[in-house]
Amino acid sequence: MDNEKIEVRTDEIIEYLKDKKYQDAKKLVLENNAVDIAEIIEEIIDEISIEKAVVMYRMLPKDISVEVFSYLPVEDQVNIINVITDKEVGHIIEELSFDDMIDVLEELPANIVDKILEKTPKGERKLINTFLNYPENSAGSLMTIDYISLRKDMTVSEALSHIKSVGMDSETVYTCYVKDNERKLRGIVSLRTLVVSEKEELILNVMREDMIYVNVYDDQEDVSELFKKYGFLAMPVVDKEGRLVGIITIDDILDVIDEEVTEDFERMAGVIDSSDQEYLDISVWKHVKNRMPWLFLLMCSYMITGGIIQNFENVLSNVIALVTYMPMLMGTGGNSGSQSATLVIRGMALDEIELSDAFRVLWKEIRISTIIGISLSALNFARIYWFDGQSALIAMTVSVSMLVIVIAAKSIGSMLPMIAKRVGIDPALVASPMISSLTDMVSVVTYFLLATAILNL
Amino acid sequence: MDNEKIEVRTDEIIEYLKDKKYQDAKKLVLENNAVDIAEIIEEIIDEISIEKAVVMYRMLPKDISVEVFSYLPVEDQVNIINVITDKEVGHIIEELSFDDMIDVLEELPANIVDKILEKTPKGERKLINTFLNYPENSAGSLMTIDYISLRKDMTVSEALSHIKSVGMDSETVYTCYVKDNERKLRGIVSLRTLVVSEKEELILNVMREDMIYVNVYDDQEDVSELFKKYGFLAMPVVDKEGRLVGIITIDDILDVIDEEVTEDFERMAGVIDSSDQEYLDISVWKHVKNRMPWLFLLMCSYMITGGIIQNFENVLSNVIALVTYMPMLMGTGGNSGSQSATLVIRGMALDEIELSDAFRVLWKEIRISTIIGISLSALNFARIYWFDGQSALIAMTVSVSMLVIVIAAKSIGSMLPMIAKRVGIDPALVASPMISSLTDMVSVVTYFLLATAILNL
Repeated sequence: MDNEKIEVRTDEIIEYLKDKKYQDAKKLVLENNAVDIAEIIEEIIDEISIEKAVVMYRMLPKDISVEVFSYLPVEDQVNIINVITDKEVGHIIEELSFDDMIDVLEELPANIVDKILEKTPKGERKLINTFLNYPENSAGSLMTIDYISLRKDMTVSEALSHIKSVGMDSETVYTCYVKDNERKLRGIVSLRTLVVSEKEELILNVMREDMIYVNVYDDQEDVSELFKKYGFLAMPVVDKEGRLVGIITIDDILDVIDEEVTEDFERMAGVIDSSDQEYLDISVWKHVKNRMPWLFLLMCSYMITGGIIQNFENVLSNVIALVTYMPMLMGTGGNSGSQSATLVIRGMALDEIELSDAFRVLWKEIRISTIIGISLSALNFARIYWFDGQSALIAMTVSVSMLVIVIAAKSIGSMLPMIAKRVGIDPALVASPMISSLTDMVSVVTYFLLATAILNL
Repeated sequence: MDNEKIEVRTDEIIEYLKDKKYQDAKKLVLENNAVDIAEIIEEIIDEISIEKAVVMYRMLPKDISVEVFSYLPVEDQVNIINVITDKEVGHIIEELSFDDMIDVLEELPANIVDKILEKTPKGERKLINTFLNYPENSAGSLMTIDYISLRKDMTVSEALSHIKSVGMDSETVYTCYVKDNERKLRGIVSLRTLVVSEKEELILNVMREDMIYVNVYDDQEDVSELFKKYGFLAMPVVDKEGRLVGIITIDDILDVIDEEVTEDFERMAGVIDSSDQEYLDISVWKHVKNRMPWLFLLMCSYMITGGIIQNFENVLSNVIALVTYMPMLMGTGGNSGSQSATLVIRGMALDEIELSDAFRVLWKEIRISTIIGISLSALNFARIYWFDGQSALIAMTVSVSMLVIVIAAKSIGSMLPMIAKRVGIDPALVASPMISSLTDMVSVVTYFLLATAILNL
């Protein structure tokens, strides 16, 4: 793959910059395309300093510098803006595509945003302010206004000329949007259709009216589901009155998918999600704040487990060997529950499992856990009785507990995420750690009750 | 969102089918687009039977039935093929786009594939066989041959006419590929460029030669990274000799991303990934086979933990109260480790964390875990000493253990995935369950060693 070649060159560029051989560095940098140059700038910020990165950035030809800027992560964009002159900032803001500009403005401190907005014409300023007010994670926050709009009464040939005249400034030209006089969305027509249609045909006759659209306040996760379902390259966004206010393109959806998946991963590990910041850019204190709440809550739940154990202290002091098998029972319970929870949560995220499937899922998990439980029980009985040399009664206590715990854990693990979804909580929030501590309680209660009964304590 | 409307109609359709009111069902079905009709067919298979679904499928007009078929999940496609006549199968295979056809053929039993291939012309048969032999998860297995190819010496106007004549059969027309006489890829040109360029211009002058391409044997995960990085709608695939053999389009990449994320989720929960089958379609036995190995392996690791505890039985029998705090220490250790592991694994998957960042990550985790560890320790000391009424020495044993365990767990949790990646193992494989059982061992050893020392046992 080409990536490796680029990696090597980055090291050379960084060496040149450190040695102040700027012309050599520039020559190497310009061998790359804008996406890769942005990666090189990122590396320079990480490895040397923001100042050196700005030196490099200023050496880029005007026509590619803004493109490179648009590919940088937002934190680095803000860092650069803080270092360069107002005039340079003005140039960047002017040249960026509308949605990239909004993304940058959202991250800048209010006083800098005000300074930038002062210089923009009044009409545009109002539009920018509207965009800045769309809630994070809404369709409105993802969209761009750089799309091609057509009228029903244009001919295909007129439409193509229109695209030719404005096409280079649009985020995408591959889907064009047909609006009426009240700016309401009336249809869509793809560039493919325009190219293969007769030149004199009216747009009216080639456009599709059964288009799928989203509302500005729709959640970005729902929007990305629609992209996946229909395989679109772009989707129109309308306001309450059905007026076309922007479009969302698939490249932004790829970022949304990454964000949503990261959120799920973090929630499932008991970490409060840290918006769209990178691990290394998050401060130690923020990391602590993101992780402490769940660790603390779960710690409290273990106190309950501890309390249960305390109640059975007489059982324990009679047969101290029982403690030896506690981690295995609790651990296997936790793992069994996590397996089921993960599969169900992922299945729901991909729309493969609906809430109405709850009983099918439960019935499946009960059969699976019975088979697994019996196998692990048998193995444990054999090991504890023959290998560990414990009494048959202790072996039986542990292995019957194992069976009960695996079945209970898999039932809880599969049902809890579905219950969470039913009551409107993100299923990822009740995943592994929470299920583990629940199954821990179930495990110790089961174990000690069975021990009391079987061992006659 | 439109989805809800569709959901309601599906129930009505299913009722009509159950009552054999086929014409009413058909009328409702035909109000939807092909994607949604495919979902309705899926629901009919799940809720009634494959036979009823085929009845419905046969009622669809010829021009949309194949499109609907292409949107069905592969299992359902195979189910339908098993029920319908050979002639109907022939029609579907003939009309499907090349990559959809390959996907279906891959899942069909060999004898059916042979029967289908017998009827296809020899040249096409050879091509199909080549495609069927590309490894699963390779770029080759994702690509299609339905792309537009141009020659350098064409004019823009000739290129547009060419697209007009063949465009409707291509997967995408938005990027066209320029080949030389030896079928080697020489450049790409977007439909946008063609539309905005002068008609007499030669393709040679408007094409880009610095295109990114992948090899047929590249892994699909690497390919999807390139799509994310560059924001492409399609990417060319070449063979060892640099000859263009197909293209990959972004809609297939969305599926790849889902698959790869599911694989990560499953591996992190200790489940062997079940290719691309849906949870409810996987048999109970297959589920058992996917989950048993890790549960068993981890169970063995808990035996080691149990063995460690057994060695400290004299400590335990002296101070039985120590058992009460064991689940909390082990659980908090496991959760702390999982948090770090998840963040690092996700960071590596998104290329935010490189292997060269190992020391920065470790240093960050040590500071984070020290702050968290001290806070949780202090809370525990207070609770155990004042609330539980234990001795100051026991309270100290538990709280010092807590500090050591949290720091150790976060260090292990962050470093193990990086070590795994360094030696070429998927980091997701060493996530939560494995890290929990490792931290369990560390936890009990720490706890009992500290108990022996502090309590003088």
